[in-house]
Amino acid sequence: MSIGSVMYRIKEDDTIILYDNESQKKRIISLKFSKGRLNTDKGFIVLSDIVGMKYGDTISTQLGFEYTVLPINLFDFIMKKLNRLTQIVYPKDAAYIAFKLDVKPGDTVIESGIGSGAMSCVFAHYIGKNGRLISYEIRDEFIENAYSNIKKVGFEDRVEIKHRDIAEGFDETDADSIFLDVKEPWLYLRHAYNALKAGGMLGILIPTVNQAEETLRELNLFSFIDLEVSELLLRKYKPTPGRFRPQDRMGAHTAFMIFARKI
Amino acid sequence: MSIGSVMYRIKEDDTIILYDNESQKKRIISLKFSKGRLNTDKGFIVLSDIVGMKYGDTISTQLGFEYTVLPINLFDFIMKKLNRLTQIVYPKDAAYIAFKLDVKPGDTVIESGIGSGAMSCVFAHYIGKNGRLISYEIRDEFIENAYSNIKKVGFEDRVEIKHRDIAEGFDETDADSIFLDVKEPWLYLRHAYNALKAGGMLGILIPTVNQAEETLRELNLFSFIDLEVSELLLRKYKPTPGRFRPQDRMGAHTAFMIFARKI
Amino acid sequence: MSIGSVMYRIKEDDTIILYDNESQKKRIISLKFSKGRLNTDKGFIVLSDIVGMKYGDTISTQLGFEYTVLPINLFDFIMKKLNRLTQIVYPKDAAYIAFKLDVKPGDTVIESGIGSGAMSCVFAHYIGKNGRLISYEIRDEFIENAYSNIKKVGFEDRVEIKHRDIAEGFDETDADSIFLDVKEPWLYLRHAYNALKAGGMLGILIPTVNQAEETLRELNLFSFIDLEVSELLLRKYKPTPGRFRPQDRMGAHTAFMIFARKI
Amino acid sequence: MSIGSVMYRIKEDDTIILYDNESQKKRIISLKFSKGRLNTDKGFIVLSDIVGMKYGDTISTQLGFEYTVLPINLFDFIMKKLNRLTQIVYPKDAAYIAFKLDVKPGDTVIESGIGSGAMSCVFAHYIGKNGRLISYEIRDEFIENAYSNIKKVGFEDRVEIKHRDIAEGFDETDADSIFLDVKEPWLYLRHAYNALKAGGMLGILIPTVNQAEETLRELNLFSFIDLEVSELLLRKYKPTPGRFRPQDRMGAHTAFMIFARKI
Repeated sequence: MSIGSVMYRIKEDDTIILYDNESQKKRIISLKFSKGRLNTDKGFIVLSDIVGMKYGDTISTQLGFEYTVLPINLFDFIMKKLNRLTQIVYPKDAAYIAFKLDVKPGDTVIESGIGSGAMSCVFAHYIGKNGRLISYEIRDEFIENAYSNIKKVGFEDRVEIKHRDIAEGFDETDADSIFLDVKEPWLYLRHAYNALKAGGMLGILIPTVNQAEETLRELNLFSFIDLEVSELLLRKYKPTPGRFRPQDRMGAHTAFMIFARKI
Repeated sequence: MSIGSVMYRIKEDDTIILYDNESQKKRIISLKFSKGRLNTDKGFIVLSDIVGMKYGDTISTQLGFEYTVLPINLFDFIMKKLNRLTQIVYPKDAAYIAFKLDVKPGDTVIESGIGSGAMSCVFAHYIGKNGRLISYEIRDEFIENAYSNIKKVGFEDRVEIKHRDIAEGFDETDADSIFLDVKEPWLYLRHAYNALKAGGMLGILIPTVNQAEETLRELNLFSFIDLEVSELLLRKYKPTPGRFRPQDRMGAHTAFMIFARKI
Repeated sequence: MSIGSVMYRIKEDDTIILYDNESQKKRIISLKFSKGRLNTDKGFIVLSDIVGMKYGDTISTQLGFEYTVLPINLFDFIMKKLNRLTQIVYPKDAAYIAFKLDVKPGDTVIESGIGSGAMSCVFAHYIGKNGRLISYEIRDEFIENAYSNIKKVGFEDRVEIKHRDIAEGFDETDADSIFLDVKEPWLYLRHAYNALKAGGMLGILIPTVNQAEETLRELNLFSFIDLEVSELLLRKYKPTPGRFRPQDRMGAHTAFMIFARKI
Repeated sequence: MSIGSVMYRIKEDDTIILYDNESQKKRIISLKFSKGRLNTDKGFIVLSDIVGMKYGDTISTQLGFEYTVLPINLFDFIMKKLNRLTQIVYPKDAAYIAFKLDVKPGDTVIESGIGSGAMSCVFAHYIGKNGRLISYEIRDEFIENAYSNIKKVGFEDRVEIKHRDIAEGFDETDADSIFLDVKEPWLYLRHAYNALKAGGMLGILIPTVNQAEETLRELNLFSFIDLEVSELLLRKYKPTPGRFRPQDRMGAHTAFMIFARKI
């Protein structure tokens, strides 16, 4: 998904947006998984006709209605197309986690578990083609679903999935950062510590206060500094000039985040 | 600053952390800007001795006190070392902006103005060595200071600064994304629209409600979709098991963010 | 509704709670409006049998199932029984407004409009039997509904409703406080100023930023001090020891509140 | 402090506001505690001259500068004049607590401990002359200070202070509501339950998550319903039309509140 290039031609395994200019609605289509015809309420589109197009081009149904073909953002993919078997890491948290862990092109990142692969996609997105994400997961059905999600955005070459219980430890010893999204992260802090490079960052996501406390108690036993415990509240506004106001409802809680740096 | 590599040896223009194991305090040092001896309360360090070391190594003062040498995160650099002439884009916002703009290795990103260079560093961090950040700024003193900050984290090769009034428009026509952090962003939406690729993302940062409204009014005149107006609240907790509670005070407002995608 | 007295006997026009000890569910019943039998899923109750009981007593259906009779709080009434024709002032805001306006037993309070009567009930609750609430409202259907709500909690003697357009001004000149919950409060600030006593408090509720700004602009023309513009966010927690965490969703916005004191 | 009456003449033990029209600054003066002359930067005022005045009147220094005499709100008193030996219950929380506990004229309310008397004043304010607040407190210095605060707003006749350890239980058995602001509220839930009337409300204030959990565990052992655990965030705005925005910093946490109703 090298959508950064202007000369880019759409390939048969890309995930794209079809935008209906009239109704101003989007459809997100994984071409590989949606072979043949796509039926819309304004006729059908032959999907193979999209392959080879450039983003911004239009494609017509057999009845002559036009859709604009647009690239998908990772944000859109996670929020609207990623198949969820689990609670996902939401973009507001995922972006902050990636930044606090200092994830960047070429990094080696470890995560566990893989969940539905949302955070995996974010890490893969930022480490780029030369980076390496090692994802430890014990449950088969999560691996299968997450891998399918990862393939839809073309990141399968950046991600190595290890079907393993992390109670046995991590194979790596010089990871740039480690992210734990497991039920009892406090059990694996020694393993995480050993797998990190000097100065490497540890990130932990937990939904309850009790998990946060248990983790903090255990973290004190290791040489971590720069401890931060935080949560993010995303407040959206109704984009109506003249009657500008916050939306009526908002997410009140996704998770607490804990960050620390290995000395 | 390829701190991802384990074999990495510290160079004479790196910015590093000196960690005092005893007092548990950090000092952030830009080696290039801190030539000679560094005086501490436990004796002095000869800074050139650090060059060639690996992260995790220790260095002693002439009195025998030891400091651990650690790599700096971009987060640390922005919060503690970046020289500020302006209000900066805070990490909570910067991380979300970069993610909403889908910034990734190899991208071409445009920003204006450069401010103190905090957001420039975040963009440069994520686009990597093959990416390109073009930063438009009219004020000399901002350029000078921001460029100095950018050099301290080794990103000068990724950033091209254009000393220009964006009222004249942008030179580029296929940017992956554009970020506006200017006082009157509504004046430049046409230019931003023209500089973006199809499907490219526009991000805007403004502190007041009035600027948000003025911008939204003008945005309606262009073919943008996926409009989002939001703000992020970061709530930190006291990391004390047994007496776990949010901190007493928090930032209540940094800025409103507006996002939209060009069709 | 003098539920403060232990010796209190339930009257035929009270609003009460019937609590099902088995299913742990509450029903709120206005006796006056629910004459005859009340059908439950465990048989029926003869409502007139409740009159004369004390709170805490139990009443049985003809099948022998027991309900405990409890007094209703104003909080419960507003959230669960008050008939709504309009957006109501929520308890979190209502309690803060009453306190900022310094409402207390014996006060004379003016409000406009009456809405569904939620705020009227809160004012009446606090001013007590010797206080006086004058409520200005132009729309018949609102008056009728609000008055019905006010009667259900027995506050009709404390509230005087004036069927009047406040563009004509208020009759009173020494009100302890005035509360405006109207679409264009800035039009009535002179009238509000004239109706207040020296040192009296003005409170204003508006949902949008634009209304807040318009009001603030106009407020500057009058001799008000102690200006406050604020909003309240109520965050609830799941009361589960061992898995303690905030609820997933919350109200993100009800209204902005403006307060000022007449010199 | 029957400041509701227009004909009210200021008495020698009132607490009042002196408002400097020129500098737009307020001074809060307890006449009883500030005998003799009040020195200002514009000359002195003879305080006994204020006794007998009406609110809204002006008083001159011997140099001819004028101050307006205004009534004090309980809000002002708590935030600016109440002498604090402890963390106080802030108005945003105090107002919500009083409302959730359904406090109203004539009620019998129990509280423990008295702290600095802020919450005592709020309860006394709402129960009025015919209400009764019984405040249990074990520490002499808190009683002395709180009682002095309570007298400054003229509520001493409504408050009965019991110098007692609540581990011995409460004397009362039919309180309308009980409020616990103590370090280990879970130790006293049985006593609180026994002291409440049927349908009466219990309110608890605790700063940490751990206290909330301990309390919730114990609450489950008693017949309480309508459990709510919540916190309130007050966000203030800069009241500047044209540059309207939230203030930069805010209180992030005062306390968690727990509410429950006795069956």
